[in-house]
Amino acid sequence: MEIFRVQHQAQDTKARTGILTTDHGAVETPVFMPVGTQGTVKAVEPRQLHELGYRIILGNTYHLYLRPGEQVLRTFGGLHRFMQWNGAILTDSGGFQIFSLQDLRSVSEDGVEFRSHIDGSKHFFTPEKVIDIQRSIGSDIMMVLDECPPYPTSYREMQRVVDRTIRWAERCRKQWQSKPPLYEWRQWLFAIGQGGVYRDLRQRCLEALIAMDFPGYAIGGLAVGEPIEQMLEVVDWSTDWIPVAKPRYLMGVGTPVDILEAIDRGVDMFDCVLPTRNARNGQLFTTRGKLNIRNAKFRGSREPIDPGLPYYVSQEFTLGYLHHLFRAKEILGLQLATLQNLAFYQWLVQTARQKIRQNGFRQWKESFIQQWTATGRVAT
Amino acid sequence: MEIFRVQHQAQDTKARTGILTTDHGAVETPVFMPVGTQGTVKAVEPRQLHELGYRIILGNTYHLYLRPGEQVLRTFGGLHRFMQWNGAILTDSGGFQIFSLQDLRSVSEDGVEFRSHIDGSKHFFTPEKVIDIQRSIGSDIMMVLDECPPYPTSYREMQRVVDRTIRWAERCRKQWQSKPPLYEWRQWLFAIGQGGVYRDLRQRCLEALIAMDFPGYAIGGLAVGEPIEQMLEVVDWSTDWIPVAKPRYLMGVGTPVDILEAIDRGVDMFDCVLPTRNARNGQLFTTRGKLNIRNAKFRGSREPIDPGLPYYVSQEFTLGYLHHLFRAKEILGLQLATLQNLAFYQWLVQTARQKIRQNGFRQWKESFIQQWTATGRVAT
Repeated sequence: MEIFRVQHQAQDTKARTGILTTDHGAVETPVFMPVGTQGTVKAVEPRQLHELGYRIILGNTYHLYLRPGEQVLRTFGGLHRFMQWNGAILTDSGGFQIFSLQDLRSVSEDGVEFRSHIDGSKHFFTPEKVIDIQRSIGSDIMMVLDECPPYPTSYREMQRVVDRTIRWAERCRKQWQSKPPLYEWRQWLFAIGQGGVYRDLRQRCLEALIAMDFPGYAIGGLAVGEPIEQMLEVVDWSTDWIPVAKPRYLMGVGTPVDILEAIDRGVDMFDCVLPTRNARNGQLFTTRGKLNIRNAKFRGSREPIDPGLPYYVSQEFTLGYLHHLFRAKEILGLQLATLQNLAFYQWLVQTARQKIRQNGFRQWKESFIQQWTATGRVAT
Repeated sequence: MEIFRVQHQAQDTKARTGILTTDHGAVETPVFMPVGTQGTVKAVEPRQLHELGYRIILGNTYHLYLRPGEQVLRTFGGLHRFMQWNGAILTDSGGFQIFSLQDLRSVSEDGVEFRSHIDGSKHFFTPEKVIDIQRSIGSDIMMVLDECPPYPTSYREMQRVVDRTIRWAERCRKQWQSKPPLYEWRQWLFAIGQGGVYRDLRQRCLEALIAMDFPGYAIGGLAVGEPIEQMLEVVDWSTDWIPVAKPRYLMGVGTPVDILEAIDRGVDMFDCVLPTRNARNGQLFTTRGKLNIRNAKFRGSREPIDPGLPYYVSQEFTLGYLHHLFRAKEILGLQLATLQNLAFYQWLVQTARQKIRQNGFRQWKESFIQQWTATGRVAT
């Protein structure tokens, strides 16, 4: 039994549609996963995510470990029940967050010591520990602990990172297989390829991970400052190496254009804070382009937030009203802007899936990017 | 044509049920109106208010005048369309806010000059002006401009306040009758009785206002620091003087106990920031009493937020989850706490209506207050 099945392979591009089959429902790919860092996609109720068509979200192991903590999560029987989300959940391993901390204490072969950003307390994560935490969370898809180097990183240092990432992945796999899940559903484990922008290191890393036969593979260590062309080149290499039958997940990406370019190169899964975080800063993604809702030109505008999208929030409320809510610092502004951006990202991947099935993805992608870049307005 | 009709007069108390008939739907009384200060009940979507059974909300004329302003409201065809609320709206006159401002400049017979709390700009409200603003807002129920004295206020000063309040009410009534509404629905005007805790002044004020035959009457100038017993005494006098056929509105009240005591004394309408503001501070109203959700004892609690209430938010989410959201400073915590408190207030007035119809209100009220005061837990 595999988690993933390819449904339609496009002819003129590496883009494909597929199905992730989890015990919390089927998920169509390519898919965008909203980020629910600490047990909530910020400012959105779970039923609203479902209403927008979302069937999988991402949780952050580092944050959930610190708060509410493993004990509470076990008491509740996992994160799904804790937050009342009945769809699927993917959790990262915490590696990315820990390696981003200022107070990272030390990394050794055994694991990584860090201080909590909440109270400064010391903690130690090993590959085995992050699997155990994700077992307490009960995520449908778990990620291995990887070392997350910054950009740029030297070739020599990246060699070391790749070797350790492979060894840590093997330890995670053993820990995953050593015990049944805590709750009554299956948990799949995905490996993460590292190697920076070095082709041979990327290849060596992925080949070693593929030999261990994980249910899925992520492309990690990207979107950390490298030029977009380099990112896409690494994606292109990686999807050539990852077996066709396995799901491919590009972590932490990205903009609408990034996502379409990566779909074109055979990526199936995405997550990013961009739509939700930017919503809270007043940046809207719409089929008429990106806009800053605080801009005075939206004062009194009776235009719907996004007439091009069929979603409740896009049609029901106006730019003028949302502008007012942001100016008046009303919480409802954060709620509606977040819903709009998640509606836009949902529309983006839904349309991509439809175009792939119709063998029109490449043409649509190019037209979308041309329109988006030139005028911001895209046809729907 | 009147706005109000009494449906059932209880036998052993002054409590009654009734119907407010507005062009935005019928509203059953006794009713609690959530406060939507600047075009939104904070942290709640309009459709969620409807889902909770609310059919009327309150808007603040002072805030809406400053932001988004009359011009924007007229462009949209009124506040209902601006905020996408299809139920009824009552607006205060702005008097209470203005008289609470630090930078209140001067009050004269003509009106009151004040400075905006947003940018310090100077504005002048007259009785005629506040009617015109409420015409731009398009509220179903408008309130007259009144002078709002603090507690305590001397008898001599209160005499002056009452005389001016009567003259301003007459000017408001003339302005209301001088022109048809701006939009395609009716607007009713309610007068406000003042007089502090002085029985003869309260009576003089109300009798003068009743002689002008307004569609409804508010009891104003209460819940400003006077003892609860005095407040209830003033309410009791006032509902004796206001004609039975007219709706009676106790402004800015209150706690669950205040509301039930006032219903017992014949009040039909209430508004208060208590459920929504306290929600954002973590205080929940539930059928198991008031509780502070930040309290460590709720960590990991799998109890529903309020098993005694039939609402989605009360049943679906747990105290432990809400505790986590508040500890993690998540916006969703503010959203869910607000929904719970509005669910509780809705349940309170719905149950009151039911008990009045069954002639069991007085008994239920006493039992509720006894339980609420002693243990916090109330039967549902």
